[in-house]
Amino acid sequence: MSDAIHITHVTVTPVAFRDPALLNAVGVHEPYALRAVLEVCTDQGITGLGETYADAGHLRRLRQAADALVGLDVHHLGRMHAAVAAALGGDTGSDGHGLTGMITSNSTVDRVFSPFEVACLDIQGKAAGRPVSDLLGGAVRDRVPFSAYLFYKWAAHPGDEPDSWGEALGPEGIVAQARRMIDDYGFTAVKLKGGVFRPEEEIEAVRALREAFPGRPLRLDPNAAWTVETSLMVARELDGVLEYLEDPTPGQEGMARVAREASMPLATNMCVVAFDELKPAVSLDAVQVVLSDHHYWGGLRRSKLLAGICDTFELGLSMHSNSHLGISLAAMTHLAAATPNLTYACDTHWPWKTEEVVAPGALEFREGSVAVPTAPGLGVELDRDALARLHEQYVSCGLRDRDDTGYMRRIDPSYERKVPRW
Amino acid sequence: MSDAIHITHVTVTPVAFRDPALLNAVGVHEPYALRAVLEVCTDQGITGLGETYADAGHLRRLRQAADALVGLDVHHLGRMHAAVAAALGGDTGSDGHGLTGMITSNSTVDRVFSPFEVACLDIQGKAAGRPVSDLLGGAVRDRVPFSAYLFYKWAAHPGDEPDSWGEALGPEGIVAQARRMIDDYGFTAVKLKGGVFRPEEEIEAVRALREAFPGRPLRLDPNAAWTVETSLMVARELDGVLEYLEDPTPGQEGMARVAREASMPLATNMCVVAFDELKPAVSLDAVQVVLSDHHYWGGLRRSKLLAGICDTFELGLSMHSNSHLGISLAAMTHLAAATPNLTYACDTHWPWKTEEVVAPGALEFREGSVAVPTAPGLGVELDRDALARLHEQYVSCGLRDRDDTGYMRRIDPSYERKVPRW
Repeated sequence: MSDAIHITHVTVTPVAFRDPALLNAVGVHEPYALRAVLEVCTDQGITGLGETYADAGHLRRLRQAADALVGLDVHHLGRMHAAVAAALGGDTGSDGHGLTGMITSNSTVDRVFSPFEVACLDIQGKAAGRPVSDLLGGAVRDRVPFSAYLFYKWAAHPGDEPDSWGEALGPEGIVAQARRMIDDYGFTAVKLKGGVFRPEEEIEAVRALREAFPGRPLRLDPNAAWTVETSLMVARELDGVLEYLEDPTPGQEGMARVAREASMPLATNMCVVAFDELKPAVSLDAVQVVLSDHHYWGGLRRSKLLAGICDTFELGLSMHSNSHLGISLAAMTHLAAATPNLTYACDTHWPWKTEEVVAPGALEFREGSVAVPTAPGLGVELDRDALARLHEQYVSCGLRDRDDTGYMRRIDPSYERKVPRW
Repeated sequence: MSDAIHITHVTVTPVAFRDPALLNAVGVHEPYALRAVLEVCTDQGITGLGETYADAGHLRRLRQAADALVGLDVHHLGRMHAAVAAALGGDTGSDGHGLTGMITSNSTVDRVFSPFEVACLDIQGKAAGRPVSDLLGGAVRDRVPFSAYLFYKWAAHPGDEPDSWGEALGPEGIVAQARRMIDDYGFTAVKLKGGVFRPEEEIEAVRALREAFPGRPLRLDPNAAWTVETSLMVARELDGVLEYLEDPTPGQEGMARVAREASMPLATNMCVVAFDELKPAVSLDAVQVVLSDHHYWGGLRRSKLLAGICDTFELGLSMHSNSHLGISLAAMTHLAAATPNLTYACDTHWPWKTEEVVAPGALEFREGSVAVPTAPGLGVELDRDALARLHEQYVSCGLRDRDDTGYMRRIDPSYERKVPRW
């Protein structure tokens, strides 16, 4: 028998990377997106990588969890999950930015556990000489399709030069953005982040996309910016146009009311974001598609559990994304490849990013999809110079918690957060 | 990267082993129990073991599946499941004996896939030098508790010498049987297979067990022999005595009616035996405890999915057993060890068995529990002489399909199968 592989220490490195001025229902992306890179080191000399959020409270909890995990075997994920729960002792995080629904002490454990689990699967895969997808039941597809992710946006952050994408504040700008993104990446599905302008304007943008890209699945996600009545109006107006409508209105009961009358499936990454929320969602028939996200569903294996639950309870399955780097993209790709019922193209913020921490070459988009890495583990390696640079950027940028609303209010003091807004 | 491990061929060996005259709601165990032993061979020279049912239709389907799996990588379990589904093409099995609920074409795939999955995990574990529990998230307990499994029984099959257990046809015999089983194995929980005699007699037997073994969890399983009204009468009479009442009455709707009034949890391995049945069961609140069984829930990973579903939907989880050999016990032990919410002692028919196909030493009962094997893979090896002997016994015994009712009717032509009976 091979030796057990014990965790000796964990390095948590917060990083910041440039992010364009992307608009959403609660404000605007700040000039830097924050992530934490985890390196889990072992007594066998194998190191595993994880990537997660980097708000201050989460960083504190990651370090608490890391201390609790030293000495455990990287194969003992059940014991690790219990150790993280014990270390956090009921502590409850917050998503701060208001885009991810309610966080409980249980879901805080899943959030904190996730990057450690990914890193331990990276180590298990390296030790066994197998890609992470093989530890999840094996890839059922060789390439994972992702979706174009369109945003209303400013040409630049205040005081900066315009970025290469330029402004997108109406149908014309959105169609141009989609065209470039499709030209560059080959995406076959298209999602528009809404909740920014009056619903009538966003309906116009979706219709313009439909006209410009006939046959491509389209999605609209206003992040719960609408009342039930407004959601039903939009659903009627976009009847036959949308693949799914994502989080039109807050809460499972509101979603259930919309679902009863809307012609298209409703998707969510806001009202079903933790295992505790599945039973009521099924009981209410609140949603038809769950957007999984291993960063808050407790890692790759628990995301497979979510997938199996969706399959069993006749829910569709898609995948959510926040701004992320290559470690997360590798993990998302392995997970999606090994999840038969993940039949929708996954979300990714990838095109918006101009900086990276993993060495180039492992992850490439072609025809809107990423080939599943076949090297052992996640199949990505850190670029240490890039990591140091992005950590330095974290230190110097001053951002410590994502706050799209606060940033918007510093630019436009009249801005108010309102859920629902219309 | 390690080489892929491809399946080159599969040997399916039906075996028969002596089984005592154990009574149940549909008749009596025949003189031999049938099982199939699978050996999955690979191009890396590593062989994996699986164990499953051996009725004729199942053997035919196993061989169809085996043909479809040759050439696949043992890590590609998702692709293997799809290949088995394609090979079976909607063919639907039958449990014959009537003790396991409805079988559909979907659940037939899970039944046929299961022993291949277990064998492939055995191979994966051997290749990686890790026990199978480590491929399932790691053991959260070092020993797995099992339950004593009491049966009403005849002293012998007609024409045979009495077996060492002797007759048990009333409270006294059942208590004596329990005493020996607890003395020999140390079981801390006790289950009585009921549905054999009038419910009043079985209530008396349970009360005698309660008196003889105060403090030990007790379970009663009449295999749906009772109407809703009779079930409620028994529930009232055994209020405060049973840990759970297993399948008192047929069907989810009947179980739901009993569950609404019974004071103890209702458990099932009859009305929730496939993923398709979970959504209606949750909706009806038909049961409080699901008895998992990797042999029909599609293997160890899909049994982990079932466990996660139970955890998510607030259902208890226990484990069911048919007559089985050591390959199955090893698989059950790895699975149970890696399933945090499997908090009930698992069922096993182990004490009723006098013959075996695995080499001795790997699996020992102490204080009612089995230590989780730590050797790579399942941690058990075939005893080839024993396998040959039990296969010869299969050939000569003439049994090809389990038929407890037919056997009983040959002994007592007046016997009729009736569900519910009381």
